[in-house]
Amino acid sequence: MPKVLIAGGGLVGALNACFFANRGWDVEVFDVRMDIRKMEHVPGRSINLALSQRGKASLDAVGLKDYIANSGVQMFARLVHDMDGKTLHKQPYGQPGEHIVSINRRHLNEIMITEAEKFDKVSFYFEHKVIKADSRKKELVIMNLNTNEQLKFNGDLILACDGAHSAVRRSLMAAPHFNYSQEYIGHGYVELNILPKNDDYALEPNVFHLWPRGDFTLIALANRDKTFTVTIFAPFKIFEEEMYDDESVLKFFKKYFPDAYTLLGDTHILETFNRMKPQTLLNIKCSPHSFGDCILLTGDAAHAMVPFYGQGMNCGFEDCLVLSKILDEFNDNIPKALAAYTERRVKDCHTINDLAMYNYNELKDLVNKFRYKLRKKFDLKMNKYFPNFWIPLYSMVTFTQIPYSIVVERRSWQDKTLSKVFKTISFVGTASLIGLAVYKTQIYKRYI
Amino acid sequence: MPKVLIAGGGLVGALNACFFANRGWDVEVFDVRMDIRKMEHVPGRSINLALSQRGKASLDAVGLKDYIANSGVQMFARLVHDMDGKTLHKQPYGQPGEHIVSINRRHLNEIMITEAEKFDKVSFYFEHKVIKADSRKKELVIMNLNTNEQLKFNGDLILACDGAHSAVRRSLMAAPHFNYSQEYIGHGYVELNILPKNDDYALEPNVFHLWPRGDFTLIALANRDKTFTVTIFAPFKIFEEEMYDDESVLKFFKKYFPDAYTLLGDTHILETFNRMKPQTLLNIKCSPHSFGDCILLTGDAAHAMVPFYGQGMNCGFEDCLVLSKILDEFNDNIPKALAAYTERRVKDCHTINDLAMYNYNELKDLVNKFRYKLRKKFDLKMNKYFPNFWIPLYSMVTFTQIPYSIVVERRSWQDKTLSKVFKTISFVGTASLIGLAVYKTQIYKRYI
Repeated sequence: MPKVLIAGGGLVGALNACFFANRGWDVEVFDVRMDIRKMEHVPGRSINLALSQRGKASLDAVGLKDYIANSGVQMFARLVHDMDGKTLHKQPYGQPGEHIVSINRRHLNEIMITEAEKFDKVSFYFEHKVIKADSRKKELVIMNLNTNEQLKFNGDLILACDGAHSAVRRSLMAAPHFNYSQEYIGHGYVELNILPKNDDYALEPNVFHLWPRGDFTLIALANRDKTFTVTIFAPFKIFEEEMYDDESVLKFFKKYFPDAYTLLGDTHILETFNRMKPQTLLNIKCSPHSFGDCILLTGDAAHAMVPFYGQGMNCGFEDCLVLSKILDEFNDNIPKALAAYTERRVKDCHTINDLAMYNYNELKDLVNKFRYKLRKKFDLKMNKYFPNFWIPLYSMVTFTQIPYSIVVERRSWQDKTLSKVFKTISFVGTASLIGLAVYKTQIYKRYI
Repeated sequence: MPKVLIAGGGLVGALNACFFANRGWDVEVFDVRMDIRKMEHVPGRSINLALSQRGKASLDAVGLKDYIANSGVQMFARLVHDMDGKTLHKQPYGQPGEHIVSINRRHLNEIMITEAEKFDKVSFYFEHKVIKADSRKKELVIMNLNTNEQLKFNGDLILACDGAHSAVRRSLMAAPHFNYSQEYIGHGYVELNILPKNDDYALEPNVFHLWPRGDFTLIALANRDKTFTVTIFAPFKIFEEEMYDDESVLKFFKKYFPDAYTLLGDTHILETFNRMKPQTLLNIKCSPHSFGDCILLTGDAAHAMVPFYGQGMNCGFEDCLVLSKILDEFNDNIPKALAAYTERRVKDCHTINDLAMYNYNELKDLVNKFRYKLRKKFDLKMNKYFPNFWIPLYSMVTFTQIPYSIVVERRSWQDKTLSKVFKTISFVGTASLIGLAVYKTQIYKRYI
């Protein structure tokens, strides 16, 4: 059986380990962190994860869907909070019953590591840092952080699942024809928490809470322990100019998010803002995703995206599923499978990166616009009567496994169709008006 | 006096060394290659260099302009070769006397190293490979390739002049807010040579020879030793599909570049094509160019560009001059100077990168289009009568030091002005026609 080396034991690395364990391959996973199952506090970003259809289907393929979906909190709608701190507007995500699931990153990661480790042929090397990858030698150079020893591992397939700042990818930057871009957006984020109130959720749990305020936004997602993870997204400029000291931070929250402010509490807000600076958000695109006959970038290493479509993890999980299916199709012929993967998957990843950027505008402001709400309602109504024919954009991304690039093609077709319909209506309308005018003119003429 | 560490002793690194030597700073330059002055053959790309005003002005500031300009071959025009192998069209670059200079990369590099080394406080470390840079520690980690020893050097300023695949830049990829893109174009190139004929140039030396053939192009630039450096640029697809073996390569040259083909000779063409694969061409943009208080990217490390405006070296040399002037302005306050450099220079570098891509289309095909030639002639005529008011785009880039971003603003103003003039002319024309039509109608009416 072939051997796969996996750089990174985070969400995508651990899921890939499950896939290849099921495949019967030898699996070696290298992670720079210590075993998160033994850690008290896991550093790094979280931004609560929302599991949707693509993620579920991928977990399903390794037998984890039900367990994980049941460990999260279902969310059926967006709940938009007005400035007055009282008025709420509910916008369902899809048809009744359609939902996404708020998931705890660490819990999910731990389950997958434990699941993969059940297989004899799977080894996790924690506190092992990837230094570089060599596609010709099919080799990973690794530093054992406990001994400072430099080790070399060889495999038939090397998967880079080591995140947005991938060491594997960095060592391949000079590969000919490797197109790459990384772009930081002007917004940063700070994460806070709302604790339970009288032993219960302080807000409605089964919705995605949203405080859209034009250029900045607050969101809250429920956790199983009855807390909420709360995130403020704002331009760095606003953090600097309007949240520069204790007083201004509290004033800002009180003014724009009065209901959330009360639940968060002064002490927690200040403690958080004094402890950490706003974090950056990054958009990464590259092509190809494969190098030589043996290296493949997956997850954030290939396509880190801004978190505004909730698809970062889902797309990364779908990478694992797509790879697995392509390996089936090519009978484990790795070079052919990698070439096919790049050929098919890159455009889908580019598309969801772009959609995530686009959806930021939606989250920021659009949700409050009349025209947007009307289209949303129209799409859902159409979808109710023609469930296979007319699926709204958000639903195609979130509740189906239609390849992202096809999703956008279909949306563009919907837009064109609607535009034609409106043109026809307005043409018929205009023609009728002109007809009426001519008719009236004829009548008036008799009296001139 | 402060100390500057320079990563890379190529063209931009060596010129920076001259600038800082003149400034009286301690200078340490690290180059991965052995001393090129001691090498028989220097590997790596050349694509003949064309020195223009920005490069000259920068060399002038360290006292090298005249010596270097006199070591090259002046080129006053493009000479376009037709498919028949006989017909030639000359297109002057600017006003009579305006020219660019064909320069030998190696010779230029050697002169600058020798010049910098004349200063006591300048040291060159050859066969020293930069491993990484640390902006916080103001440190370069260097590997001595002869001893395999890892060394650390500290300085007040660290300049990355280590080219498109800069090791310094690579070690800073994860710096927050560092936006970066690298893009390979679909075209590759192969370099050939035309030898002297009867001890003289085989083609007219003082022009830039051009064989534009739509999607692919051949160019030739004269050297002082009476040879020509010849480069074919073509899509990789064309190299693969139409130049795949000895016979097809010769057929291709014979068909499209008959006169060049005769001068190059079968043996030389085949020897070259069998020895090397077509090389890639890369476009790099990033922002900022400075990191922390001490690191600055210059030259190709900051803005590798495709070679179609002949500005890669000139822009890199201008980087050195701009930095020097800004350091003067801020009295050697390095952090302030670096911030100002990024603020002012990045947009200019982005602009010339874009112009280089744009000019590729010009080189490929446009030079043969009637409308393009007309505009070129019009621009030169206008420039003759209004030398300061109307400078053609190519001349602003090549014969002035107007910042690239202003060049493009001015060009856009010229385009708008021309468009207005044409609109006015066509309005007056149309109005006259309508007037005439109405007048005639009146006359005819008399006879109806």
